Amino acid sequence: MALVVKKFGGSSVADAERIRRVAGLIAEDYSMGHDLVVVLSAPGDMTDDLIEKAREVNPKASRREMDVLLSTGEQTSVALMAMALEALGLPVVSLTGWQVAVRTNTEYSNARIERIDKERIESELDRRRIVLVAGFQGLNKYDDITTLGRGASDTTAVALAAVLRADSCQIYTDVDGVYTADPRKIPGARKLAEITYDEMLELASLGAQVLHNRCVQMGKRYGVEIEVLSSFERKPGTKVKEVTDLEKTKISGVARDTEVSRIALVGLRDEPGVAFRVFQTLARDKIVVDIILQSIGRDGTQDISFTVARADTERAASLLAAQQTQLGFARIDTDDKIAKVSIVGAGMMSASGIAATMFEALYDAEVNIGMISTSEIKISVLVDEADSDRAVQAIHRKFFD
Amino acid sequence: MALVVKKFGGSSVADAERIRRVAGLIAEDYSMGHDLVVVLSAPGDMTDDLIEKAREVNPKASRREMDVLLSTGEQTSVALMAMALEALGLPVVSLTGWQVAVRTNTEYSNARIERIDKERIESELDRRRIVLVAGFQGLNKYDDITTLGRGASDTTAVALAAVLRADSCQIYTDVDGVYTADPRKIPGARKLAEITYDEMLELASLGAQVLHNRCVQMGKRYGVEIEVLSSFERKPGTKVKEVTDLEKTKISGVARDTEVSRIALVGLRDEPGVAFRVFQTLARDKIVVDIILQSIGRDGTQDISFTVARADTERAASLLAAQQTQLGFARIDTDDKIAKVSIVGAGMMSASGIAATMFEALYDAEVNIGMISTSEIKISVLVDEADSDRAVQAIHRKFFD
Repeated sequence: MALVVKKFGGSSVADAERIRRVAGLIAEDYSMGHDLVVVLSAPGDMTDDLIEKAREVNPKASRREMDVLLSTGEQTSVALMAMALEALGLPVVSLTGWQVAVRTNTEYSNARIERIDKERIESELDRRRIVLVAGFQGLNKYDDITTLGRGASDTTAVALAAVLRADSCQIYTDVDGVYTADPRKIPGARKLAEITYDEMLELASLGAQVLHNRCVQMGKRYGVEIEVLSSFERKPGTKVKEVTDLEKTKISGVARDTEVSRIALVGLRDEPGVAFRVFQTLARDKIVVDIILQSIGRDGTQDISFTVARADTERAASLLAAQQTQLGFARIDTDDKIAKVSIVGAGMMSASGIAATMFEALYDAEVNIGMISTSEIKISVLVDEADSDRAVQAIHRKFFD
Repeated sequence: MALVVKKFGGSSVADAERIRRVAGLIAEDYSMGHDLVVVLSAPGDMTDDLIEKAREVNPKASRREMDVLLSTGEQTSVALMAMALEALGLPVVSLTGWQVAVRTNTEYSNARIERIDKERIESELDRRRIVLVAGFQGLNKYDDITTLGRGASDTTAVALAAVLRADSCQIYTDVDGVYTADPRKIPGARKLAEITYDEMLELASLGAQVLHNRCVQMGKRYGVEIEVLSSFERKPGTKVKEVTDLEKTKISGVARDTEVSRIALVGLRDEPGVAFRVFQTLARDKIVVDIILQSIGRDGTQDISFTVARADTERAASLLAAQQTQLGFARIDTDDKIAKVSIVGAGMMSASGIAATMFEALYDAEVNIGMISTSEIKISVLVDEADSDRAVQAIHRKFFD
């Protein structure tokens, strides 16, 4: 008999039929004698619909009131799922974020969990009830509703698993695990049985949208083993944990991120502090810069290229353009027809020749490499967006075939 | 500078345009310096939509989970209205039932308010914020969400007005006040400037769906003057209060209720306690009986006729049929093609000839009278449903023309 935290996303509660199917899955696990805490997201497109309704009334609504509005989504999910479990004759209780209570800081719409009260959940579990918890939402010190940011129901699940010292935390998704590459694009992509937190973090930030980053970080911090599973089929998924046994594979996956663009400042004065001032300008407006390349020109000037999220491109460019005189550069180039292709693996840097093998695969596939960035567990290259599918396929074939 | 509690129904928050219009109305009153507490119902058909969603998942869902689900409706309303007021640059805060907190007993889906905490609302008013409160919902001693029953946002408003000792409680509706008869049906129907609580209670229970009965009872108990106003036009409505100055009109209105049916037990044994056992059977299942007529037959049997809500007809008949042997009656007749037509007036019984005038009007209009029931402030007659419009018109003409 184990205590298991499960989390189902919005597509699992999008309509009555799906709700009943998930209820059946929960019922099976309950019948095995497990104590179950189930975290749910808002149904299907409900969050987007609510945002649209708010926009019609006030495009600049306060974050506090947005949180009051959006938190109705998960409340709807837990109530309907409770009803579906009642229909199966099971003891169940739904709890909102404030009922649990999930205590957060006061940053509306992007709150951080500070602590979670265990009393209510534990007393419901003691009565052998299935406990349904509305994800994504909490309560701040003013007794106001807060939300944790888009996709943060995963974080609610992992935080609950940590506080309750659950035996496992199962995140049910549209995919059935973490793959060595996007299985819709790469025919030979294989499901990983296990992956480390660090690898998962790199993969998530590289565009493999399986788990929310904050939930993986929290899992790592509190040692919660997270399993990514399919909500459609009963089969083992991928376990995210501290150390994996799979030493034989040096890299765990190939990822592609097309949500990036490159900005180049050309003809920058070659003097100390210039790079600092460039990136300070961007940091002040919370624009995250990823790969950076600095090249010294021959005529006393230098070029600085870097990547930002594609959505930030124009904002970043205009912030820098406004500082053109102070920074002293000749021109700004932007390019959003690029993609970042990366390989991730915990054992990568200790093995020799991984980078060389990757570059060889790209050379064979006639893909030009723009910028290169490496860390302890990943190597990323910038390529033309049009080449990126071919690049991922070539790299995946080289490492996994 | 007054403290005013306002309540707007679901049609006032049905879409962005209506929300903005109501926000404008609130803004005007705020600009006059009033302290405002505004109670809102769920938007338009949202409650019905949620009930339908629940039914798809589980037609026999628990009341606890229904309350979790339905309470999202008013939460949606207060959040959107807060955003609309923010767009006008006004200081505003939305509060749910548990945030206020509106403390209720544990009867889910039909909870009674036990007390209301004033602290949060008063501290928000002290900061000169407009306080929006989700109607219809509360919090029980288990920290579970409860709802107060359909239409009970009126009750929330009056309870808040009582607790906060508000200067007035304004209920905004689709109609602009209380009329001497249904203004859509009776051309000469006049709006009343004032009406007593008791008259309003009789009118509400007789099918004049303006105010929720429980809210009028609460207004009477705590001496809260309730004003019924139009949410579409700025003009005086009808004030519901203890004593009215309008002594000259003996009756305040004519009402028609078609949601009734008549049940007759024929050939009942004429022995003591039979009537008691009949009505005990119904009371045990919470079926409310209205007008009762008992007639002694000539052959040692008697007939008992009574009216029940039309929705209860079949349930009442089958409960009694199951007791046929014990009660000892020959047969049950039911008739739902009837209507109850009533006149209401606080000064009625002290004035002579009111009943006679009513019966004369019906006689002139050739309407047959079935059963008759009288109380301190009303006279009701049962007529064929097909005759009921003509009956109301005839009575109204007699008294008000």
